[in-house]
Amino acid sequence: MTPASTVLALSGGVGGAKLALGLERVLPAGELAVLVNTGDDFTHLGLRICPDLDTLLYTLGGVVHTGQGWGRADESFGFMEELRRQGGPDWFLLGDRDLVLHVERTRRLAAGERLTVLMAEFAQRFGVRSRLLPMSDTPVATLLDTEAGELEFQHYFVRLRCTPQVRALRFAGAAQARPTDELLNVLHSKALQAVILCPSNPYLSIDPILAVPGMRAALRASGVPIIAVSPLIGGRAVKGPTAKIMQELGIEASPASIASHYAGLIDGLVLDHADAAHAEALAMPVLCTDTLMSTLADRERVAAAALELATALSRSRARSRA
Amino acid sequence: MTPASTVLALSGGVGGAKLALGLERVLPAGELAVLVNTGDDFTHLGLRICPDLDTLLYTLGGVVHTGQGWGRADESFGFMEELRRQGGPDWFLLGDRDLVLHVERTRRLAAGERLTVLMAEFAQRFGVRSRLLPMSDTPVATLLDTEAGELEFQHYFVRLRCTPQVRALRFAGAAQARPTDELLNVLHSKALQAVILCPSNPYLSIDPILAVPGMRAALRASGVPIIAVSPLIGGRAVKGPTAKIMQELGIEASPASIASHYAGLIDGLVLDHADAAHAEALAMPVLCTDTLMSTLADRERVAAAALELATALSRSRARSRA
Repeated sequence: MTPASTVLALSGGVGGAKLALGLERVLPAGELAVLVNTGDDFTHLGLRICPDLDTLLYTLGGVVHTGQGWGRADESFGFMEELRRQGGPDWFLLGDRDLVLHVERTRRLAAGERLTVLMAEFAQRFGVRSRLLPMSDTPVATLLDTEAGELEFQHYFVRLRCTPQVRALRFAGAAQARPTDELLNVLHSKALQAVILCPSNPYLSIDPILAVPGMRAALRASGVPIIAVSPLIGGRAVKGPTAKIMQELGIEASPASIASHYAGLIDGLVLDHADAAHAEALAMPVLCTDTLMSTLADRERVAAAALELATALSRSRARSRA
Repeated sequence: MTPASTVLALSGGVGGAKLALGLERVLPAGELAVLVNTGDDFTHLGLRICPDLDTLLYTLGGVVHTGQGWGRADESFGFMEELRRQGGPDWFLLGDRDLVLHVERTRRLAAGERLTVLMAEFAQRFGVRSRLLPMSDTPVATLLDTEAGELEFQHYFVRLRCTPQVRALRFAGAAQARPTDELLNVLHSKALQAVILCPSNPYLSIDPILAVPGMRAALRASGVPIIAVSPLIGGRAVKGPTAKIMQELGIEASPASIASHYAGLIDGLVLDHADAAHAEALAMPVLCTDTLMSTLADRERVAAAALELATALSRSRARSRA
């Protein structure tokens, strides 16, 4: 029997998965649930692909290519080589082993199975101890309004390498999406102690999750401290286009902007030491640590910091109620 | 511009592909058209797989695994290894490179494209000079009534290795199938000189083609000699369950049975020297050669023999008309 989840992490792909792995390692086995962005999901070559869910699956399943942070370490590319030879679209890398998930997911979703159920089964196959929860069982697509026209996420992110200037984002299908029963069970459980927003891109990876109607309210209604880990270090993103997009949207790449973006949702923010000077100006509790997650020890340290801030806030609430 | 087809070969998979290759090599470039059984086609893991068409594609495209006669020589099996590791069905071997065709075919057929158009494009990609014509653009499934219940072809042939005793066969969907315009163009063309039934299994590989309504009549209406190459050598099949099935269906595994099976359709039969003694008893012209096709030279020899018999029959007809 799986223990009840004590921590729920909201995550996009690579960066979020790093913190999720840290959380899994510092928590007792099975106590982590990860609520994963599916706005990046797309249909490619007729196959349904869920990049962020699979990155979590491979990371927590111990088979991820640690150098790149996504895909599998033990991968081969016969399919891709042949696709390229035949003149097929080769901008999205699909490993031979990776394809097993896409093929089975495509077939079973078409047969009416829920993504949540499917991912739970995949997680079990890969020996993942944490719960992997898609943000929605119905498709939501992150679309970017750019100077190059409206782009599906993977076309912007992978094919065009985040080059086009972004003017706005929308989440097609979000209005029809709903928090799943599996997520609501986690949020309603008395066991839950904290919600952690991973240092994923707030606009591309966390906003799609929050765009699901009822999601913000459900997270708040859990009553536990909600802590975000800032994706910025000294005004720059560790990886990906967070800072670039903030600039294009006319937002300063600073901790204040992150705090403001998550205003009304989060109770505290974990910052990098490089941003410590910003802490006092923020109207919320802050904990500073080194947030760069290169090693496993880094991931555990950042995870512990986020949990420490959540625990401190819980205690302070308990005191104020007393 | 592709030359008009002078020869049409009817073929199943491995055995038929051997003769098709021989025909291609002895004919001027581009003059061969191959009408291929699609009764073996099936949907596996949600993917549409056409084993006989792909065997022809790989054989005539020069990438076939010559040792096994199907699949590719330059194949890898990362997908299969991972599918097996995850507990998926591993009885049907799918190579990583092979998957490119299945994935694209599945997507494009679902989008409403015709199999004939798709295979013509695949053939072009693989540099195949001959025309590859599916027997039908609509699905036809060869189903075997066996002691183990009714079985789809690949379940009988690959999963159960032809072990169950066969009581009868039927071709589901055949009533809705039609000869394609592409085939009818070949058959109506004045360039056509001969139709050759490859030494494929008459019951499993050629009968599905002939089960398409209008097919027999269209073949006969072409007016050219129709020659079958017997799949038996001394009462035994070179490969596959031809002799076993004939026995189970209560048919003697002899040239007379093959001639009788194709009665009303064929004008002549190519037999192995081992069966030469049967020739006189057959009520049709016969040519004997060594029909075992181990080497490329063997394939060319059998192809030349079939064409020689067709030519002889054409001349004799011309004489009788004169």
